[in-house]
Amino acid sequence: MDELKNRGVREMEIVRIKNRQRSREKDQVITETPLTIFFNDREFVTLLCSPGKPDFLAVGFLRSEGLINTAEDLDDVSVDYQKGIVFVRTKTRTDLIEKLYGKRTITSGCGKGTLFFHVLDSLQSKRIESTLQISAEFLLKLMTSLQENSVLFKTTGGVHSAALANREEILFYSEDIGRHNAVDKIVGECIIKNIPLDDKILLSSGRLSSEIVIKGAKLRLPFIVSRSAPTSLSVELAEQTGITLVGFARGRRLNIYSHDYRIV
Amino acid sequence: MDELKNRGVREMEIVRIKNRQRSREKDQVITETPLTIFFNDREFVTLLCSPGKPDFLAVGFLRSEGLINTAEDLDDVSVDYQKGIVFVRTKTRTDLIEKLYGKRTITSGCGKGTLFFHVLDSLQSKRIESTLQISAEFLLKLMTSLQENSVLFKTTGGVHSAALANREEILFYSEDIGRHNAVDKIVGECIIKNIPLDDKILLSSGRLSSEIVIKGAKLRLPFIVSRSAPTSLSVELAEQTGITLVGFARGRRLNIYSHDYRIV
Repeated sequence: MDELKNRGVREMEIVRIKNRQRSREKDQVITETPLTIFFNDREFVTLLCSPGKPDFLAVGFLRSEGLINTAEDLDDVSVDYQKGIVFVRTKTRTDLIEKLYGKRTITSGCGKGTLFFHVLDSLQSKRIESTLQISAEFLLKLMTSLQENSVLFKTTGGVHSAALANREEILFYSEDIGRHNAVDKIVGECIIKNIPLDDKILLSSGRLSSEIVIKGAKLRLPFIVSRSAPTSLSVELAEQTGITLVGFARGRRLNIYSHDYRIV
Repeated sequence: MDELKNRGVREMEIVRIKNRQRSREKDQVITETPLTIFFNDREFVTLLCSPGKPDFLAVGFLRSEGLINTAEDLDDVSVDYQKGIVFVRTKTRTDLIEKLYGKRTITSGCGKGTLFFHVLDSLQSKRIESTLQISAEFLLKLMTSLQENSVLFKTTGGVHSAALANREEILFYSEDIGRHNAVDKIVGECIIKNIPLDDKILLSSGRLSSEIVIKGAKLRLPFIVSRSAPTSLSVELAEQTGITLVGFARGRRLNIYSHDYRIV
């Protein structure tokens, strides 16, 4: 097994048909592997993800779900690469276990409706007021770096990439088969390294759906930038929560969907 | 509101920067809207989706989650477009309610680990043995139709499309911001119209992750074809469950990842 340690692609034998010619060939296929998160010694969830940075992914996922907030909350994070498990332990345990079991049905992809709308309400009440301003030229430069650094995408065509930047440069990159996982890996790295997110720029290769904007709003991120399209709901939420949302950032153009005053 | 009835895009005012020129313009943004499913009068889940075919999406989602199986199970499906709710009622209610509440944590994106592996075990024990065979030329023709019919993608660049075909032609198309939703809309349409899936071809514009293959295996679909990349886990699962998995089907080429004997 040990797939969490591999380099993210696996060689597989495929049959290729090209211009009616059939051939048996080796091909590089992107690795997808189950990663189970134990939270305070209880099995919590199994994510399907790309190998690499499983500890960051677990911590980022727990942050996005609201189960931890800062590095201060963490007691211990350890990875069993053989079994594909990350163990996350927090300093204060009792309250969090309650939170955990109350929250289990509220993950972004499968939330109960009423709770979904409660999350929205609470986010809208704490508008992001960051005064960070950056130039469109700089954003486009960041997006070019993101693309150039997407190693797995170039090999396999099957992953999403994300990155976090400050006003000078990109701090971390991540890649994953899941759009959300790629972002959670970045979030986890920030938490473990104790880096604030409220003055940073999140870059993504993937579409900007409401779930990504909700994640960003919880982290107080002032900028979310993608080379792909946003949805109507993500634009509305970005507008309401105070996020500058940028889509189709490629080459020498980009579209600003909300709070364009931050882009100069 | 009434967003479920709109045509899937909304005009929004954006700021466009192109070659350092800034302009305020109207743009077409893909609609994303919450759809709440009530199952036997209990609120079950809120999906974030594109408008269009909400009844099919709800029924397909419930089928993918294993809460219903065939049209026979359904008593009534109705849509409140104003509130964004689909009400699905089944003929037999008691057992299903139990199933529902037992299952709530097992949806594909956020399943508990142990249960995830149980699902895999049970799928592997019922291998798909369909003898359907089709030509690579025909598959490529279907993929071209899929692309030509993706109206929303052309307008907004932000959706996934899916379709179901038999050995002669495409039967239904669907589009959604979610890869899974696009497939579930197809599944729901088949259930409501009482069309068997075990001799059909599923076409998708999106990446083939393990969750799509698991969905297909539950439906006994012999073919899953995409213009994008598969993952290693999806290839393994397709191999084990008996599905012919085809990726990168575009133009005059395609890659077959499992059970290539069905492609002649």
